Amino acid sequence: MTTETRTRTTPEAGLAATMAEIGRRAREAAAALALAPAGARARALQAAAAAVRARAAEILAANAEDVAEAKRAGIGAALVDRLALDPARLEAVARGLEDIAALPDSIGRVLADWTRPNGLRISRVSVPLGVIGIIYESRPNVTADAGGIALKSGNAAILRGGSESFYSSRALVAALRDGLRVADLPEDSVQLVPTRDREAVGMMLKMSGIIDVIVPRGGSSLIELVQRESRIPVIAHLEGLCHTYIHRAADPKKARAIVLNAKMRRVSICGATETLLVDRAIAATILPAILADLRARGCEVRGDPETLAIEPLAVAATEEDWRTEYLDAILAVRVVDGVVGAIEHINRYGSHHTDAIVTQDEATAERFLREVDSAIVLVNASTQFADGGEFGMGAEIGISTQRLPPRGPVGAAELTTYKYLVRGDGQVRP
Amino acid sequence: MTTETRTRTTPEAGLAATMAEIGRRAREAAAALALAPAGARARALQAAAAAVRARAAEILAANAEDVAEAKRAGIGAALVDRLALDPARLEAVARGLEDIAALPDSIGRVLADWTRPNGLRISRVSVPLGVIGIIYESRPNVTADAGGIALKSGNAAILRGGSESFYSSRALVAALRDGLRVADLPEDSVQLVPTRDREAVGMMLKMSGIIDVIVPRGGSSLIELVQRESRIPVIAHLEGLCHTYIHRAADPKKARAIVLNAKMRRVSICGATETLLVDRAIAATILPAILADLRARGCEVRGDPETLAIEPLAVAATEEDWRTEYLDAILAVRVVDGVVGAIEHINRYGSHHTDAIVTQDEATAERFLREVDSAIVLVNASTQFADGGEFGMGAEIGISTQRLPPRGPVGAAELTTYKYLVRGDGQVRP
Repeated sequence: MTTETRTRTTPEAGLAATMAEIGRRAREAAAALALAPAGARARALQAAAAAVRARAAEILAANAEDVAEAKRAGIGAALVDRLALDPARLEAVARGLEDIAALPDSIGRVLADWTRPNGLRISRVSVPLGVIGIIYESRPNVTADAGGIALKSGNAAILRGGSESFYSSRALVAALRDGLRVADLPEDSVQLVPTRDREAVGMMLKMSGIIDVIVPRGGSSLIELVQRESRIPVIAHLEGLCHTYIHRAADPKKARAIVLNAKMRRVSICGATETLLVDRAIAATILPAILADLRARGCEVRGDPETLAIEPLAVAATEEDWRTEYLDAILAVRVVDGVVGAIEHINRYGSHHTDAIVTQDEATAERFLREVDSAIVLVNASTQFADGGEFGMGAEIGISTQRLPPRGPVGAAELTTYKYLVRGDGQVRP
Repeated sequence: MTTETRTRTTPEAGLAATMAEIGRRAREAAAALALAPAGARARALQAAAAAVRARAAEILAANAEDVAEAKRAGIGAALVDRLALDPARLEAVARGLEDIAALPDSIGRVLADWTRPNGLRISRVSVPLGVIGIIYESRPNVTADAGGIALKSGNAAILRGGSESFYSSRALVAALRDGLRVADLPEDSVQLVPTRDREAVGMMLKMSGIIDVIVPRGGSSLIELVQRESRIPVIAHLEGLCHTYIHRAADPKKARAIVLNAKMRRVSICGATETLLVDRAIAATILPAILADLRARGCEVRGDPETLAIEPLAVAATEEDWRTEYLDAILAVRVVDGVVGAIEHINRYGSHHTDAIVTQDEATAERFLREVDSAIVLVNASTQFADGGEFGMGAEIGISTQRLPPRGPVGAAELTTYKYLVRGDGQVRP
């Protein structure tokens, strides 16, 4: 970033200077962005979508470079597929930005207001968090989503993408910055860390006073690194070890459809069910059809002894299976002692992400909703609904599994904080 | 805690075992407490107030022990005064618990609800955070406040009080546990770390998975230690470098009353004004009376050159003064270039805690409210209103100066998180 240096610097010192400059620019941009009208932020997002379309050839060429490097490095086909953009995927990126633009504004909402006996009028109003550092892996569309959501909520973003998608991310950020320029907002509202040097992540985690919040989005080793090293508050997205419990009063048809969808619609997302719990009272009658459905779709079943007695083709589950997020076509199945047994199992082995019950009995449903200690608890619906879009929040930056807010799906409205405005008429405190 | 050990243990291993046992009990208590009805929690708080009165002699005797030790250790008179309880202060502690009991319940509130086009009904409902670790200094009444607020919000508390108030805190915790027992709630909902060993604080900060949130309450060295060492999310309460700005359109009478109150009502609280900013357009006319008031109350004034020209008795302020939280009868005064200059000064030097403007001009007031980036921004009122009680939240555990929620005064309602309840009728995700 510095155009001239008088003394030779080590690579670390050079990177440190670069990161400091990025931080300075981000803070300046955040201050301006926080005061920009909602209209300007929405215009920037629409213009960014147009720029993604206008720069399509350039973005796809940059992506081809990433893909070629990935293949040379011998990265597996599934990862290469996640990395690759094509005109249809790029159009989805542009439409995603337009969808974010169309969401209601998340800044300046009056979250509560009241008047005190002394006449002070107090209101709590949503404001941006400030500068958000987003650290993520591989998929280039996250660059557009994360940058777009941050912008929508009035935050400046420092993006550190996966090194595999470096060129794609750079091209996408150029489009986001086009949009900012068109709307007369500071370009530095969205910046990409301009190096694949891993040191940069460590430096971001220590930029307290500059970066207000770190959002890691990736595998558990990334999240653990961030939680261990960060001196900045983190919005963490840990694993989704999700359960579906079939209660004795379940509608068998609904149970069958929900389990199949919860496990197999997409096996690699955090809302996919990993463990099926079945009420002992109906296990023998309901499990055969459910497991046949799963087998027909290529799903491996790992069962406890009672499940094995019903379904001899299943593999025996070990203790480890109750603790495993497969993200694959594998389902652990356990027979439990009613809703109490189900809740105990979930609170003990789950990751407090998303869990569901299937039942027609309202009292049991309400008990499950109350006693399962997870970010999302569902009745008679698939755990795969754990998604900001499905919640109506527009794009999401992930599902937070931490306890302090934001918990659950994190969209633009959740990337805000608030301040208190107090309007008086000369009051002094007695 | 262990009644028998087969092998000799080092003191550290003994402490580690004690802390692990406290953690285990807290988690168990938190699980039960989260599901306890609001009525039981309120009953426990009322019974705890009764127990404080019933155990008054014992609590005062324990406090006398703390005071005697403090005097032997040569602790200053001001600190001894903060430490000392008497029947009136103890009655205030009991009434504080009753006030917390009377607050509306903060758990199970529906914060938002909506229905999706596919028929899923989604609601966001407040739930406890879980186990809160509260680390604080000297004043014994914090033990009752912190324990009471945690209990009100359905959280289990692990309290680590200042070593000066060790005996007092132990006696007060015994009263809180009496209350829990009366209401049939787990006594271990409130536990005190049973040692003055400083190692215990470090251990608490590493109990992730056991303690959900750490609340430090004390001087900046404690807060910095916690922010540096904690592996657990922190609700931090940093310094309050608060400003009052007098705009050219201020009502001079209100300005005089507000400044005197904001600075001098109590100089040692975080909401006390530390820097007075005055619009150049009215500095010469308004400052003399204001500074005379302050002088009459024994307040030292440190002014910039323009202030010194108006008030030759003032001391010259240095750059350092704009950055200093005096917590004393000292006021820094600076003449600024209208509301823009005031906002610039505040956002640059302030601690984003609480800042006020005095003006009769509504547009200027709204601009100040919008552009000052602080947890609390006031118009025509004293900064000393920065207090959970004054906000109508009941007792507070402090004023959070972090950006992520909770920001500003933290009462029982702010010590909660939320979960999403989703009620369906067999929906699967397309």
